[in-house]
Amino acid sequence: MPEFFNVLPPQRALQALLDAMPPPGLDNDEVAVDEALGRITALDLSASEDLPSFPRATVDGYSLRAADTFGASEGLPAYFTVAGEVPMGRAAGVSLSLGEAAGAYTGGMLAHNADAVVMVEHTQQVDADTIEVVRPVAPGENVVQPGEDVRQGDTILPRGHLLRPQDLGGLTALGITRVKVTRRPRVAILSMGDEVVAPEVSPAPGQIRDVNSYTVTAQVSQAGGEPVALGIVGDVYEEQLSAARQGLEDADVLVISAGSSVSVRDMTADIINALGKPGVLVHGLSIRPGKPAILGLVEGKPAFGLPGNPVSAMIVFELVVRPTLYRLAGCVNPPEPAFTRASLTLDIASAPGREDYVPVRLYAKGSGELKAEPVFGKSNLIFTLIRADGLVQVPLDKAGLYAGETVPVRLF
Amino acid sequence: MPEFFNVLPPQRALQALLDAMPPPGLDNDEVAVDEALGRITALDLSASEDLPSFPRATVDGYSLRAADTFGASEGLPAYFTVAGEVPMGRAAGVSLSLGEAAGAYTGGMLAHNADAVVMVEHTQQVDADTIEVVRPVAPGENVVQPGEDVRQGDTILPRGHLLRPQDLGGLTALGITRVKVTRRPRVAILSMGDEVVAPEVSPAPGQIRDVNSYTVTAQVSQAGGEPVALGIVGDVYEEQLSAARQGLEDADVLVISAGSSVSVRDMTADIINALGKPGVLVHGLSIRPGKPAILGLVEGKPAFGLPGNPVSAMIVFELVVRPTLYRLAGCVNPPEPAFTRASLTLDIASAPGREDYVPVRLYAKGSGELKAEPVFGKSNLIFTLIRADGLVQVPLDKAGLYAGETVPVRLF
Repeated sequence: MPEFFNVLPPQRALQALLDAMPPPGLDNDEVAVDEALGRITALDLSASEDLPSFPRATVDGYSLRAADTFGASEGLPAYFTVAGEVPMGRAAGVSLSLGEAAGAYTGGMLAHNADAVVMVEHTQQVDADTIEVVRPVAPGENVVQPGEDVRQGDTILPRGHLLRPQDLGGLTALGITRVKVTRRPRVAILSMGDEVVAPEVSPAPGQIRDVNSYTVTAQVSQAGGEPVALGIVGDVYEEQLSAARQGLEDADVLVISAGSSVSVRDMTADIINALGKPGVLVHGLSIRPGKPAILGLVEGKPAFGLPGNPVSAMIVFELVVRPTLYRLAGCVNPPEPAFTRASLTLDIASAPGREDYVPVRLYAKGSGELKAEPVFGKSNLIFTLIRADGLVQVPLDKAGLYAGETVPVRLF
Repeated sequence: MPEFFNVLPPQRALQALLDAMPPPGLDNDEVAVDEALGRITALDLSASEDLPSFPRATVDGYSLRAADTFGASEGLPAYFTVAGEVPMGRAAGVSLSLGEAAGAYTGGMLAHNADAVVMVEHTQQVDADTIEVVRPVAPGENVVQPGEDVRQGDTILPRGHLLRPQDLGGLTALGITRVKVTRRPRVAILSMGDEVVAPEVSPAPGQIRDVNSYTVTAQVSQAGGEPVALGIVGDVYEEQLSAARQGLEDADVLVISAGSSVSVRDMTADIINALGKPGVLVHGLSIRPGKPAILGLVEGKPAFGLPGNPVSAMIVFELVVRPTLYRLAGCVNPPEPAFTRASLTLDIASAPGREDYVPVRLYAKGSGELKAEPVFGKSNLIFTLIRADGLVQVPLDKAGLYAGETVPVRLF
């Protein structure tokens, strides 16, 4: 089997997988705009009309012909006959002649022949039909022109765009109420191990309840995927292979969370290799925790072996599984991980040639300098991460970080 | 009505509202752990048992009594009789006597009387029943002790905790499969304005399609709230008041997106004052865009008037509505806004005494220094935000930012 790398930095491992993957080819869903938050556009979307479709005032005042105001000043105001007003939400019912103005409201339409709006603060009522304008306005001043927001035919959102609240507003502004999005990648999640029992079960001595199925399920949801729980299978190769095969048939990705002992880890690699070509691509990442991770590809479908330790499993998911899910969904603008900066309270030792991820607790939130206190703990202790607010990365080329250093903290 | 401030910085305006609000008192929901992501715990949760419940090996090797290895070295190994092994997922079936060891697997239970595990790499098989140990181990070495992850009776998650993937894993580890969370705050969203029509409608000249209902709905969902759309009401005071009153009856919060002309803004304040006491608390924020925002409280329920301009409305939501929703849900660890740092490509002018929020487009993502290019545009142009990846804030005390400065960008 082409297990062509051994212990790679996570970025290189991820790249090796992405390079081996076929181009995104999930089928599409069509959803209502108000259900499209966080989904990925399946097509380029373009504007079928100008927005706005008419010239709009950006202030309260009077629409008029800018040229009629040229030279106006406090000492020598320009006089205008008020020919009417354009109420909000109505087409202009008034057409201006020389020296005429029409009442205008913020967001309302300009009168016909008007090319600017003078703010009400720069006018003075003379009588019922007459105003003074005490400052000149330039053509286009205080006006949003037709097509200034977006022009008919413009691409408003490219294919592969993860939809944010403002994107949905832009779609409804253009009358687009349904949108074609890529299907959520289905992620089959298999928990393996003779020691693992379901959370409902009271574990006997030697047994532990399943953690990783639940953390991974939640991480898949966060990344826009659709988790498919395959449950727990004991350490019997044939049963594991059969569960993995069935799971992957209906899914786009397979995530196996296996035990941590060496024999069991090898079983995960064997399963991924047995499922199809090319099988395991990367076996081992140069990170701690998370070294015994597996990245593979099975007939075009990504397959991951996560370490059994919950802390390792979560970190490996963030580094390699999450970006793979965005890629599968065709997403070109995946959300950046959220970072903050904080001052380390303790030294962190590492080793060159390895990236370390250390959970930290943040405090002094919001008041004064943020502190990051390392939460040391073995990677099989899930509560290490529960007590933490984020992760500090010790880069590959560093032997550690010092207390007092200001470091980026990945919120987690 | 106690409109006791005029044009406040958003943080002070928010604080005035939070100070006036009654303590969080939403009723609770009970949900399955796998549906609890992003929900807020309604009670302190504590561990009903030690985790792990038995001493677990953290490496593959042999469990033994550490004292029996003291003094062992490559030159003078300690000899052990292998009394059996403890398979994964099984209670220890073997009890060690002096000079005995038992096979141990990562995550498996130690044999009775064992207090440490020696890594297989530090042993040598002598014959079927005998091993040499070439390095001493300390008591507790390579072992996770019962209760080391969490102790029975410990508070594992405080009340008001927003549940993350790792928290769900911690709950299932302890056999907690259902969890009491606070109900999602229901947010009634009312769009007002004679010019506003539904997205399905082909707008006549002077009309525009509703944007803010959709952006606000999505922002409410992101903040863990439950949006309740009240639809669009024209600029008739009685109809607006009646829609707002009905909406607020079934909801915990009212968000009104009104037109931007002065007369209409005053109507929003009148409505909030008419709905109940104390009514409008803050009328105007010292920010651009977003100045004409209203924060109020109606018989204990927050009520907001958002500017009609979509860019302003979204920014005001982020600054004051979102934190209010977290407070209502009793959340003590609201997610920090995600920031990145980038170098400005253009000067941004502002005015002291005002916070400016300028949409920026980020590029050179991931390769080299990130650049932030201001997307200038009037605040009634929704596509300004669609073209942007984040917001740069010009603080209250600065007159602007310079091209080349590295600034924090709030991803948006």
